[in-house]
Amino acid sequence: MANEPDATANGQSAEDLRWMTEAIDLASLGRGQVEPNPPVGCVLVRDSVCIGKGYHQRFGGPHAEVEALSDCADATGATAYVSLEPCCHHGKTPPCADALIRAQVARVVVSVVDPFDQVDGGGIERLRSAGIEVTTGVAKEAGEDLLGAYLKRVRTGMPWVIAKWAMSLDGRIATKTGESKWITGPAARTAVHELRASVDAIAVGMGTVIADNPLLTVRLPQIADAKPPGGTNPKIASSTRQLVRLVYARSRLPDLQTQLVQTASETPTWVIAGPQIANADLAKLADHDVETWQCESSDPIEMIRQSLLWLGSNDNPRGLAMTHLMVEGGSQLLGSFAAARQLDEVHAFIAGKCIGGRDAPGPLGDPGVEALTDATSLRISRLDSFDNDVRLIYRR
Amino acid sequence: MANEPDATANGQSAEDLRWMTEAIDLASLGRGQVEPNPPVGCVLVRDSVCIGKGYHQRFGGPHAEVEALSDCADATGATAYVSLEPCCHHGKTPPCADALIRAQVARVVVSVVDPFDQVDGGGIERLRSAGIEVTTGVAKEAGEDLLGAYLKRVRTGMPWVIAKWAMSLDGRIATKTGESKWITGPAARTAVHELRASVDAIAVGMGTVIADNPLLTVRLPQIADAKPPGGTNPKIASSTRQLVRLVYARSRLPDLQTQLVQTASETPTWVIAGPQIANADLAKLADHDVETWQCESSDPIEMIRQSLLWLGSNDNPRGLAMTHLMVEGGSQLLGSFAAARQLDEVHAFIAGKCIGGRDAPGPLGDPGVEALTDATSLRISRLDSFDNDVRLIYRR
Ligand SMILES: NC(=O)c1ccc[n+]([C@@H]2O[C@H](COP(=O)([O-])OP(=O)(O)OC[C@H]3O[C@@H](n4cnc5c(N)ncnc54)[C@H](OP(=O)(O)O)[C@@H]3O)[C@@H](O)[C@H]2O)c1
Ligand SMILES: NC(=O)c1ccc[n+]([C@@H]2O[C@H](COP(=O)([O-])OP(=O)(O)OC[C@H]3O[C@@H](n4cnc5c(N)ncnc54)[C@H](OP(=O)(O)O)[C@@H]3O)[C@@H](O)[C@H]2O)c1
Repeated sequence: MANEPDATANGQSAEDLRWMTEAIDLASLGRGQVEPNPPVGCVLVRDSVCIGKGYHQRFGGPHAEVEALSDCADATGATAYVSLEPCCHHGKTPPCADALIRAQVARVVVSVVDPFDQVDGGGIERLRSAGIEVTTGVAKEAGEDLLGAYLKRVRTGMPWVIAKWAMSLDGRIATKTGESKWITGPAARTAVHELRASVDAIAVGMGTVIADNPLLTVRLPQIADAKPPGGTNPKIASSTRQLVRLVYARSRLPDLQTQLVQTASETPTWVIAGPQIANADLAKLADHDVETWQCESSDPIEMIRQSLLWLGSNDNPRGLAMTHLMVEGGSQLLGSFAAARQLDEVHAFIAGKCIGGRDAPGPLGDPGVEALTDATSLRISRLDSFDNDVRLIYRR
Repeated sequence: MANEPDATANGQSAEDLRWMTEAIDLASLGRGQVEPNPPVGCVLVRDSVCIGKGYHQRFGGPHAEVEALSDCADATGATAYVSLEPCCHHGKTPPCADALIRAQVARVVVSVVDPFDQVDGGGIERLRSAGIEVTTGVAKEAGEDLLGAYLKRVRTGMPWVIAKWAMSLDGRIATKTGESKWITGPAARTAVHELRASVDAIAVGMGTVIADNPLLTVRLPQIADAKPPGGTNPKIASSTRQLVRLVYARSRLPDLQTQLVQTASETPTWVIAGPQIANADLAKLADHDVETWQCESSDPIEMIRQSLLWLGSNDNPRGLAMTHLMVEGGSQLLGSFAAARQLDEVHAFIAGKCIGGRDAPGPLGDPGVEALTDATSLRISRLDSFDNDVRLIYRR
């Protein structure tokens, strides 16, 4: 391999691309465990042979570069492939740029430059000052895809929003009389529970609370015995995070008898309330262990923005920024997220049914765009089928 | 093989299943060329070796059994696998049951029993009376899938209806202002032209004629030079059939200046008119070579039923029953077909766009069902992607 002239694709050497792809694949293993940190992978290569590898495994644990360095006896002269720029600041662990310098690697290849304030090119600069050759932007698209949620939060302070809906082949999420149970079959519904188990929070609107009185917990057959009801999937979500159930309530609060309120002491339940809701009513929910937070604005789009900033900050009741929010509906709440231009990822489950009806609701109940060029554009990311249902995953 | 004990799946021998699958695959090669006849394939097997095969290749040409028999020197003692019951009547060709008897085959295996009046078990009976062993129902589901359109027409007199629509990820076929060009990209639109090239007729409603002034021809880049504009794809449609453009016009007729009327002398254009439309107006269209046919009923559902019976009969202007009708929209016409329970196959093209809007139209503009159990249920048949778009094919 080393004697072969490097083929180049988009100006990147084929060997760089190959190892960076491995680093990105490694990084993805940390997903769900490292948040709000970014998932990162690192591969050390000398003479076209991998001599060490590692990834950031859990929030607070060692970074990918440190894991990879401790996986090999001597990294002198090696090339380090890192999916995200090595850090140069003291966070929970010392700077990784320094660790690479001490290990005397000859070259560092980076996929994505870290936009985080305290890094933002500083790691690369420090490596270069120490005489290390640095290449950036290798497999950048794949690197950014993996870091979508991290990059969004660093750039905007908001979590990544995953909208999920189940609709008929003709785009209806319920019949005209509101019947929506069930549009898709059991296998598709299990996939929804797996998705729930991988996010920080699930949001629904008051309309869905009133219509469906949902429980919004993760119910997966294979882990039913392994965890308390309402807990999160231990295989996916890290111990630092427990799934939060979120209700958007602009003018009406959930009844104290709803399943959500009744189980709030077991599974965190937060209400995002409009400014006109009375304190006394919020206090009653608090008595049932429901956390409440009042928006300053009563404008639906502004409520989405304010609530996302709050969820993405360390000031939320969990004390730790959220990176992944799943919005389950109904149309009105999903429509507000669409109107606020906050649909980062869509999981559309489509069933082999035609419901018909001008008055049957579609997934997005906002006013909608006039021109096609103003529609939210998403890229296809994945296509699966579950029995007779299909799941389309599209993302920014 | 012959010495191996036959494994059985659903009580069918694995060897029978295997050869019948081959016969069905062969049959499918005739699709688009044999209609309104059924596509049929035949494989002759002796001692687990194929000694001859054939399929019905074009309307009016020899049947599959005859093709297979003329593909082998001597079929004495062989087993004939036929995807559809051999005929026992004199149609355009003599009865195939007789040909098999004369060839002295020992056994005939049939997938689907032919419900056609003049056969309907008669072929099987004739074979058995001649001492030939007959097995039926082998690979029946696959056999019926291939024969969907034929079986529908024989049982109901109506062609198979393929509804095609292009919608956003949130189930809208246009924005709230009616903009619908283009929801999907060029690759998906080419797939639509391929579908057009494989059917007998394309139907649209007057709303679409007024909004889009469409041409409704097959425009495929690779065959642009090979045929006159507005012709059908010679690779797919047979010479006995030329694509017909169909307009459903309950109360308003197409303007004489529309592209459809202006090109009616090159590409057949038929109008299905409501009973209240004046004869004088129909005559003006006839002057432009537009064929017109007036329904007795003005009820939208009844108009669908009556028009399908007419298209599926030899009384239509082509003089030959249609087997495949593609309905391209808009919502109102597609909704009528849904309400009439005449959606046999749906090709839903889905784009990576979110349009939103309570008032943006969905694909089906009928009143719709109230209960989910009343929705039209379809089975998934195929899943493809075209660049950023997805095509879901579901069928009865
Ligand atoms: N098939 C599916 O995937 C699916 C999923 C979920 C639900 N559904 C169905 O959808 C129906 C309910 O949908 P829906 O549209 O009526 O109700 P919804 O979206 O669940 O709730 C609407 C309510 O949520 C609050 N809300 C909405 N946007 C908000 C915003 N931007 N900020 C703050 N609060 C906001 C408002 O509460 P206030 O009233 O307090 O102002 C609003 O009335 C039910 O029939 C349910 O079964 C289907
Ligand atoms: N994205 C897509 O796949 C797609 C495809 C096609 C069209 N479109 C869009 O859809 C819009 C047009 O849709 P639309 O719903 O307004 O119109 P439409 O369905 O094309 O046409 C409606 C008209 O067709 C006639 N019609 C409907 N059902 C009938 C029946 N059962 N029997 C006889 N005649 C019947 C009636 O004509 P009379 O008025 O004469 O009574 C009715 O007014 C346009 O904006 C077009 O661009 C989108």
